[in-house]
Amino acid sequence: MKTHVAIVGAGPAGLLLGHLLRAEGIECVVVERQTGDYVLGRIRAGVLEAITVNLMERLGLDARLKAEGLVEEGFNLADGERLIRIDVANLTGQTVTVYGQTEVTRDLMDAAPERGLPVLYGAGDVALHEIESDAPYLTFTHEGRQERLDARFIVGCDGFHGPSRKAIPARVAREYERVYPFGWLGILADVPPCNHELIYANHERGFALASMRSHVRSRYYVDVPLTEKIEDWSDERIWDELAIRLGPDAAAQMTRGPSIEKSIAPLRSYVFEPMRHGSLLLCGDAAHIVPPTGAKGLNLAASDVHYAAQALTGFFKAGDADAIAGYAAKALARVWKSERFSWSLTKLMHRFPDDGPFERAMQVAELDYIATSRAAQTSIAENYVGLPV
Amino acid sequence: MKTHVAIVGAGPAGLLLGHLLRAEGIECVVVERQTGDYVLGRIRAGVLEAITVNLMERLGLDARLKAEGLVEEGFNLADGERLIRIDVANLTGQTVTVYGQTEVTRDLMDAAPERGLPVLYGAGDVALHEIESDAPYLTFTHEGRQERLDARFIVGCDGFHGPSRKAIPARVAREYERVYPFGWLGILADVPPCNHELIYANHERGFALASMRSHVRSRYYVDVPLTEKIEDWSDERIWDELAIRLGPDAAAQMTRGPSIEKSIAPLRSYVFEPMRHGSLLLCGDAAHIVPPTGAKGLNLAASDVHYAAQALTGFFKAGDADAIAGYAAKALARVWKSERFSWSLTKLMHRFPDDGPFERAMQVAELDYIATSRAAQTSIAENYVGLPV
Repeated sequence: MKTHVAIVGAGPAGLLLGHLLRAEGIECVVVERQTGDYVLGRIRAGVLEAITVNLMERLGLDARLKAEGLVEEGFNLADGERLIRIDVANLTGQTVTVYGQTEVTRDLMDAAPERGLPVLYGAGDVALHEIESDAPYLTFTHEGRQERLDARFIVGCDGFHGPSRKAIPARVAREYERVYPFGWLGILADVPPCNHELIYANHERGFALASMRSHVRSRYYVDVPLTEKIEDWSDERIWDELAIRLGPDAAAQMTRGPSIEKSIAPLRSYVFEPMRHGSLLLCGDAAHIVPPTGAKGLNLAASDVHYAAQALTGFFKAGDADAIAGYAAKALARVWKSERFSWSLTKLMHRFPDDGPFERAMQVAELDYIATSRAAQTSIAENYVGLPV
Repeated sequence: MKTHVAIVGAGPAGLLLGHLLRAEGIECVVVERQTGDYVLGRIRAGVLEAITVNLMERLGLDARLKAEGLVEEGFNLADGERLIRIDVANLTGQTVTVYGQTEVTRDLMDAAPERGLPVLYGAGDVALHEIESDAPYLTFTHEGRQERLDARFIVGCDGFHGPSRKAIPARVAREYERVYPFGWLGILADVPPCNHELIYANHERGFALASMRSHVRSRYYVDVPLTEKIEDWSDERIWDELAIRLGPDAAAQMTRGPSIEKSIAPLRSYVFEPMRHGSLLLCGDAAHIVPPTGAKGLNLAASDVHYAAQALTGFFKAGDADAIAGYAAKALARVWKSERFSWSLTKLMHRFPDDGPFERAMQVAELDYIATSRAAQTSIAENYVGLPV
């Protein structure tokens, strides 16, 4: 098989890129290790920045997003005593949209056949070859056959554990990492949310987040030590803990219900450089991870994809080879700012086991300052809706 | 001897409070362990917030400050490649004034006799007694005699090492502290400053600060490990290091000259609670220390003194006992915000020995973000000129 761009991974990043390239008439093939159902079963983030919404809009794939997504004009920081509302719409003139990552993936997946975007699910042993040349190729098994896909470029949208990043030789690679001493225990349930806007809480027992996927589906989190086992957390125990950490007002509005999904996810900050090597470009979690605080993961993948589509379009439509060379720097500038925001919001809203009374006092002082400063609130809000692309 | 308010310490906080109380006709006596010349010999900060300037103005002691002080409309953060100017005047409508702490002290000291403010210099073995009663008193030796000063209140303006804070019983005390793994090596010289506005630099060799006391007197700093000895730093070595860390543009404008003073000062964040116990109030360094980054020390002492003078005036002139009870909370709210700002600017602009590549990348990302965000610059600027009193 032969194509212009071979895309590894059919999560939202890979499918979004595939659709953007197809819309420009650029040939591409998406290769995915898992089945489509498996991909849709992964529960992920649900807050979309304008950039992500705009990309769906540009593709004409935003009908369901517009119909079912919840436009959010603000969110809240709770410090155990009060709710500090960040009036995002008023401070920035922008909003975010609550719409599950799973739904974005489904919309992109459903539109693939009609848009002529080939997606090969269930591809085994995907491997990248000759990425330092102008003729890279993928090998993989598919439906019992050994396949080879030749391309001009490969784009790795295959997440933190995929093969793409590992194909970049160690001699050119730099890694930046911070692992956090806790994980997020999440519960998904078909109950109305306790509040129409997200609440991030820093309680003496730890972090909590009240969020939602729709008017009738809620997503809540508490942070727990990484030694905790999900088996020890009955639904009831999670609801009880949420009620305490979110405080009496939110607890009074919280509807409990059976979990559809629950799991513990570790928190990590990670950046890999370079984001392009030879004929391989990396997008999204393949190149960087943010802790989920602030919901930047999917949106950062979307901005990478935006830059990658621009670069590839420049190359194939305008013959501009420099467009490819410029990809990494453009993408990374935004990546680092989102990494900073996610890291700083994580530090502000969690209790760290190594923090002493002074560090805790700094959290309190920062929340007090934020509560009274329009400049501080604007800074948070502009990061929350997404910095300019 | 008997008075209304016994003030321990004749630094700028103690003298400022004495003058404010005298202006309201409230009797007070200032007791200082050192000689006046010794107090004036201490080299300290030199950037005054509006609150500090306003207090001098209210006292009618601002003539020299207005004549000789330099009004500063901005300052700069250097990251080794560029200068990020924080346009304080434009972002906040306010300015700061460069005028040495020594000069503030001198103006207050010179005006003491004519304003009927008694200051007893060279008082030995100052001790506080009965602070939990309505009749506290000081004992000390003065000019060879054992003295006792009875008062209704004692105000401790005697700095970090003075006896006042230690008089508050341990059972009610809480301390918050962070010690930094470096000190500031400062040099004072009678040379014109390299730039008309301050430059804070985060260079790969470490921190540097270019500041000034006047058009003809400069104050520069570099950070050094606490194991360094001042004897090992010739003037030439300090100038050489400054030239590297401040970068070629500043270095080209830097005039070298013999040091008038040089020393290494450790950096510390420290807050003591409560700031009032019984009939004892604490102001300034007696209750809290900030690292010098951002120049908050003297200004925080000034806002404490403002609140203390208000409380004492309320008590003596309006018979309002609650005014005294409210002092600590009012002062502390502002103290914590200044502690937060000084700590965060210190973290942003220094290289910490324990920081890895990720933490360093976060500094770079924050400086990049600040360089492009008006909200972030406004947040820094409003803290720099001083949050509302």
